[in-house]
Amino acid sequence: MGSAGTDVVVAGGGLIGLATAWRAAQRGLSVTVVDDAPGTGASQAAAGMLAPVTEAGYGEEPLLRLCTESLRRYPAFAAEVEAASGRSVGLRTAGTLLVGFDTDDVRALDALHAYQQELGLAAERLGSRDTRRREPALSPRVRGGLLVAGDHSVDGRALHAALLVAAEAAGVRLVRARAAGVRTAAGRVTGLELADGTALDAGQVVVALGAHSGRLPGVPELPVRPVKGQILRLGGAAGLLTGTVRALVRGRHLYLVPYGGDRLVVGATVEDRGFDATVTAGAVHELLRDAVDLLPPVTELELLETLARWRPGTPDNAPVLGPGGVPGLVLATGHHRNGVLLTPVTADAVAEFLVSGQLPAVAAPFTRDRFAPTTPATPPTTQEALCS
Amino acid sequence: MGSAGTDVVVAGGGLIGLATAWRAAQRGLSVTVVDDAPGTGASQAAAGMLAPVTEAGYGEEPLLRLCTESLRRYPAFAAEVEAASGRSVGLRTAGTLLVGFDTDDVRALDALHAYQQELGLAAERLGSRDTRRREPALSPRVRGGLLVAGDHSVDGRALHAALLVAAEAAGVRLVRARAAGVRTAAGRVTGLELADGTALDAGQVVVALGAHSGRLPGVPELPVRPVKGQILRLGGAAGLLTGTVRALVRGRHLYLVPYGGDRLVVGATVEDRGFDATVTAGAVHELLRDAVDLLPPVTELELLETLARWRPGTPDNAPVLGPGGVPGLVLATGHHRNGVLLTPVTADAVAEFLVSGQLPAVAAPFTRDRFAPTTPATPPTTQEALCS
Repeated sequence: MGSAGTDVVVAGGGLIGLATAWRAAQRGLSVTVVDDAPGTGASQAAAGMLAPVTEAGYGEEPLLRLCTESLRRYPAFAAEVEAASGRSVGLRTAGTLLVGFDTDDVRALDALHAYQQELGLAAERLGSRDTRRREPALSPRVRGGLLVAGDHSVDGRALHAALLVAAEAAGVRLVRARAAGVRTAAGRVTGLELADGTALDAGQVVVALGAHSGRLPGVPELPVRPVKGQILRLGGAAGLLTGTVRALVRGRHLYLVPYGGDRLVVGATVEDRGFDATVTAGAVHELLRDAVDLLPPVTELELLETLARWRPGTPDNAPVLGPGGVPGLVLATGHHRNGVLLTPVTADAVAEFLVSGQLPAVAAPFTRDRFAPTTPATPPTTQEALCS
Repeated sequence: MGSAGTDVVVAGGGLIGLATAWRAAQRGLSVTVVDDAPGTGASQAAAGMLAPVTEAGYGEEPLLRLCTESLRRYPAFAAEVEAASGRSVGLRTAGTLLVGFDTDDVRALDALHAYQQELGLAAERLGSRDTRRREPALSPRVRGGLLVAGDHSVDGRALHAALLVAAEAAGVRLVRARAAGVRTAAGRVTGLELADGTALDAGQVVVALGAHSGRLPGVPELPVRPVKGQILRLGGAAGLLTGTVRALVRGRHLYLVPYGGDRLVVGATVEDRGFDATVTAGAVHELLRDAVDLLPPVTELELLETLARWRPGTPDNAPVLGPGGVPGLVLATGHHRNGVLLTPVTADAVAEFLVSGQLPAVAAPFTRDRFAPTTPATPPTTQEALCS
């Protein structure tokens, strides 16, 4: 029924899928990536923050360890992708400034700072003068900041383009088609069915479909939901910021991430609205309002792009890695707001799992069985019928 | 030197150029329109308000007469274009509501109302309750309004598409090329040179290039300057407004024009910035902020499009029609904020001028000689050289 076999088929050619395929190919596996439009999902919208410290949420220590480990690997990962592809990935190591706009915002910053210190994370509290010394274009109304020298950024689109080249150079085959379902026989994976009804035979299938991961027929229940994010890209911002600025503006989160010489990503909404891709007037208005309040020269910048995409959210905001509930089915999804950051550690861990059947210790807390121990270990019968 | 001749070449295939060409062809002239991208200039951005009363400016009575006359002709003009093209032009005759957001805005509205009454224009002053009865989606903060039952709107893009069909059906030839200069010999026009160096021979050339009109080589000095306007288009607005809403929001002008079933044009900035086509974060922010304040459901609408184009501005905000300073050169430009509204009367007047050499009385005050009586009546010598 299927075409020539391959060791691994990766469904999804975003950052996670491509990097995983690349690492798996480097480990000696034959790998095919299936995506009808690689890099046009969440990878296209992501701001590219590599910011485990400023992103740290209360009670998410295992996730913080995973994020910190991935950040540690980033310089070598970026250098390797650049060497393999001959392309820049736009890694910026200027650090991140987290600022508070009004008094309440600064109070929240202080609470975060106390929590960071508890966890032993490096962050320097700045008064309003030093905050503006670091980023002179910020509004004089900004009350204070936290400088996190270790939180960086990468140009997610440049990284994706480079990974495409690196993966293909390592022998990864890219099939431009839509994944339509996981094929199984005798209770284990046999390949991936495409939208045209053909199939790619493979002993293992990696699901790296971002927010769509739980909707692929043949994937046992997976608590991954779309978390809508709306984001803007501005032009003409050369020299405006030293590094990433994250902010609390009257209680709302905002970030400004410089990239590509003269551009700025401004984000992002976090909305539970299902697969709604609408760019709304209200979201653009609020992002621009807060950005202008925080950084008044934004007024003069060019509005280049508005975009809405879906983060793959999970109940605990952490990814789902490794065994997928059916022998041969492997998960690399659920990265929520940390997809770009977690790309290196995910690719390494999932490639290890594909080769050895074991996840490295850092990734072990993130298997799907943490959610629902009673989830059936066999795929739904409808899918069995589809593959009979 | 040139290709087969034609009576008239119209440089510019926007609303003004196309309608003029159509009317001239109906009068028996052979007409060619030259435009490399018809309808992508100001015609693409225009909101389509047909609003001489709410647009009336102090001390612009002759312009008001021209606008009022053009509005009077609109229903028949629209019907004729629709019959000739088989396409709807989206004429809406629901009237226009002009509202004031705060106390100062309402005070300005009252001054405008007094001026309208002086001029004998029909407008009904509404209190805040009746204002919201007319448009229930408006913010409860809106303090009052003026209902101008006679001010309407048309879908400018639909009108352009219909005029293209109507003009071609009437025998107008469309040449997709860029106009590069007016050709003259012995002190009179002989045709239009195209960007590829070829020329179209014609005894008369109409300049309908909007804000670019004064930059066409061979056109004697013309005080037409670009007046930048930034504008948004929103989707999902079905049933939100009864008709056009214009507003003063804390001293700033805003309009919301429904069209096409579920869409809304929100405009517009008025900026003297030369030919700068940047859509700025600041302008989009202010338009959205004022629109959301005025009409809160805007928050949920889809931001479909942001656009910047240039109105052809003149020193007195009125168009420049008829004789162009060189025999055979004819002007149909300078319509500033009233291009869509003035399309019917301009087309009729300029077609009359092409046939008889005389402008109708209503258009007579708008010749170029009102600006600078000393402007030389011959084209610059550089252009003579180009045509020798």
